Amino acid sequence: MITVEKALESILKNRQDFGTEEIPFIESVGRVLKENIVADRDFPPFNRVSMDGICVNFNQFKKGQRSFVIEDVQPAGSAQKTLQNPKNCLEVMTGAVLPKNASAVIRYEDVTIKNGVATIEVDVIKNGQNIHNQGKDRSLGDILIRKNTLISTAEINVLATVGKFIVKVAKQPKVMIVSTGDELVEVDKIPLDYQIRRSNVYALVSLMNELKITVKTAHITDNKPVLKQKIKQFLLDFDVLLFSGAVSKGKYDFLPEVLEELGVEKQFHRVAQRPGKPFWFGRVSGTKTTVFAFPGNPISTYVNCLVYFYPWYFKSIEVEREQQTAMLIENVFFKPDLTYFLQVELSIKNGQLIATPIHGNGSGDLASLIKTDGFIQLPKGRNEFKKGEVFEVIRYRE
Amino acid sequence: MITVEKALESILKNRQDFGTEEIPFIESVGRVLKENIVADRDFPPFNRVSMDGICVNFNQFKKGQRSFVIEDVQPAGSAQKTLQNPKNCLEVMTGAVLPKNASAVIRYEDVTIKNGVATIEVDVIKNGQNIHNQGKDRSLGDILIRKNTLISTAEINVLATVGKFIVKVAKQPKVMIVSTGDELVEVDKIPLDYQIRRSNVYALVSLMNELKITVKTAHITDNKPVLKQKIKQFLLDFDVLLFSGAVSKGKYDFLPEVLEELGVEKQFHRVAQRPGKPFWFGRVSGTKTTVFAFPGNPISTYVNCLVYFYPWYFKSIEVEREQQTAMLIENVFFKPDLTYFLQVELSIKNGQLIATPIHGNGSGDLASLIKTDGFIQLPKGRNEFKKGEVFEVIRYRE
Repeated sequence: MITVEKALESILKNRQDFGTEEIPFIESVGRVLKENIVADRDFPPFNRVSMDGICVNFNQFKKGQRSFVIEDVQPAGSAQKTLQNPKNCLEVMTGAVLPKNASAVIRYEDVTIKNGVATIEVDVIKNGQNIHNQGKDRSLGDILIRKNTLISTAEINVLATVGKFIVKVAKQPKVMIVSTGDELVEVDKIPLDYQIRRSNVYALVSLMNELKITVKTAHITDNKPVLKQKIKQFLLDFDVLLFSGAVSKGKYDFLPEVLEELGVEKQFHRVAQRPGKPFWFGRVSGTKTTVFAFPGNPISTYVNCLVYFYPWYFKSIEVEREQQTAMLIENVFFKPDLTYFLQVELSIKNGQLIATPIHGNGSGDLASLIKTDGFIQLPKGRNEFKKGEVFEVIRYRE
Repeated sequence: MITVEKALESILKNRQDFGTEEIPFIESVGRVLKENIVADRDFPPFNRVSMDGICVNFNQFKKGQRSFVIEDVQPAGSAQKTLQNPKNCLEVMTGAVLPKNASAVIRYEDVTIKNGVATIEVDVIKNGQNIHNQGKDRSLGDILIRKNTLISTAEINVLATVGKFIVKVAKQPKVMIVSTGDELVEVDKIPLDYQIRRSNVYALVSLMNELKITVKTAHITDNKPVLKQKIKQFLLDFDVLLFSGAVSKGKYDFLPEVLEELGVEKQFHRVAQRPGKPFWFGRVSGTKTTVFAFPGNPISTYVNCLVYFYPWYFKSIEVEREQQTAMLIENVFFKPDLTYFLQVELSIKNGQLIATPIHGNGSGDLASLIKTDGFIQLPKGRNEFKKGEVFEVIRYRE
């Protein structure tokens, strides 16, 4: 049995490269950029009027001139005009190119217009005011978004602005999620007394969907030859296999031996943690299939996917994620010498993330997930965890 | 000009009801539940074995018996068997029904099995151990997930378990996003010197997609009759219109007057904030169309969508969201008497959310969004904001 830290270390060493693909930029939120995004022009691309009003030659204002004949209008989206006579002005709109020979913009609020003449009603204006100068924000050729950025809604604006209609992102892994266990029936069926509905596999599907990974799913009965034959094919067709169940000490827990017989090299089996201890992790050397075989209790499957698969995925696509931490709001005592992933409700008070433990009835108590927002990770080697102490948290709900 | 607080109050008073719809449970993450989810059986539905091992009659153990002939095996997914002879045992698997007459499960780790006889190797066992009793977590008829819960991956497991293949959720609003501005060209076009690419509309699309709202988009030239004709139709076809641009003081900023001419009742125009001041908000009384007309600068559009549309949407579908807060890491001075949405980088140290201001070049500096994670909301009526003070934050990136 290895520690959570060693397990994670082993998993991160086994990162995979899924390659890259090109997709429409508008579908790229949640995906990882695999190219630098470079400014195709200066930002802004021209001296841009940033207020609706008039533009003048600042020297005329400095000389004391306050009233200016309106020569013309410069709307946004029109070719640059010229202030023909420096003693005149042009009306200008936000987003327009600043007309030639103009050097300051005075907003309509500070001007009165009468009979084609604009009079400035403020005493002080600054040379260059209300002009967003060409290249002030970024220059042609500047890197705007770095490769390996996880694309959020904020990047969409920039991708559009530089014309990145199609964007290069990390390809997603091909993932197969397999449930085992003869007690399981489909969600739309009425279970017999001794049966339950298939649910872990759907929790895993939704956890994958959160990462924008689409998956296939399968169910295999607790029959060794069938298990072996199906997994053999899955190992050829998928980058990742996720299992739920059949990794513990039961008579029908064939999975570890089947995987090893099929050439999946075990990296470890069993981690010093609760819940989720009988986790088996392996990889086919030479090919690229990685196998996460999670224990079948619902909380075990769920927490292990978040604790192991998520970091493995982000490492694989080269994204760095900040580890969240939260403060325990009450003392916790936990006797076993295991890392304890304790379910917590998370709230924020004065900018401080607070973790309130919600004690469920063990790893089978799937309904307890509804009342919590994440797991606080209480390290192995201690039994007492004090109110006010800060630990890592794995959050699954905002 | 009204305050941010008054603007938000007006917006929340104008919530809409989009109705409900039924969708497959596996697509329901990010949607809002519109029914209580009730336990269709006890949780667990039977006395469930929670460890692989053997089960015995505890009284026999108490009397001193340690070796038990193995009568049979009770796998998961089989009808309940009976311990025929109380002096014998059955092998039992995790997830199986506890056999009749058995009252304790001893895990394989604590047993040796030889010639069909299991010998318990520990001195102490407890009556009922390793049995997850029927109904221990929840009872038949208990409400497991309450109406108006924002569905996360954690709810998926429970929905599957109770057989909620189809689930009732809040319908999404029909949203039309309209850009205006003659300077705009499509993302896949090369702009002329005085043009820029259309980008705000796509930022809004991606912000809607984050809420699982699919949208339509349109672009209208700065021409009053065209604007009026198109918007008239949109008001009939959509629940929400989002505009970017044409709400300021420019000669071609026809939008407020067009909207009012079409019977959209202005609730307010201009909010005491930076960026995003010229925001116009209205509603067609009697019908259900709500109009958010955001100013066209990219940061203004973006922040206003987060600050106003998001809370309006959550209020409309009856979801309560916790307001996040963060601590300023440096002093900020801001002279105008406006609420200041200052861009910040957010990080977490010892469970404390820290906001580091990143000063951009104003509301036109869209590239600055890349370096930040959210906006800290510095209230109107003050100029100095001290290091260590805590304020609300609007986060757009994890």
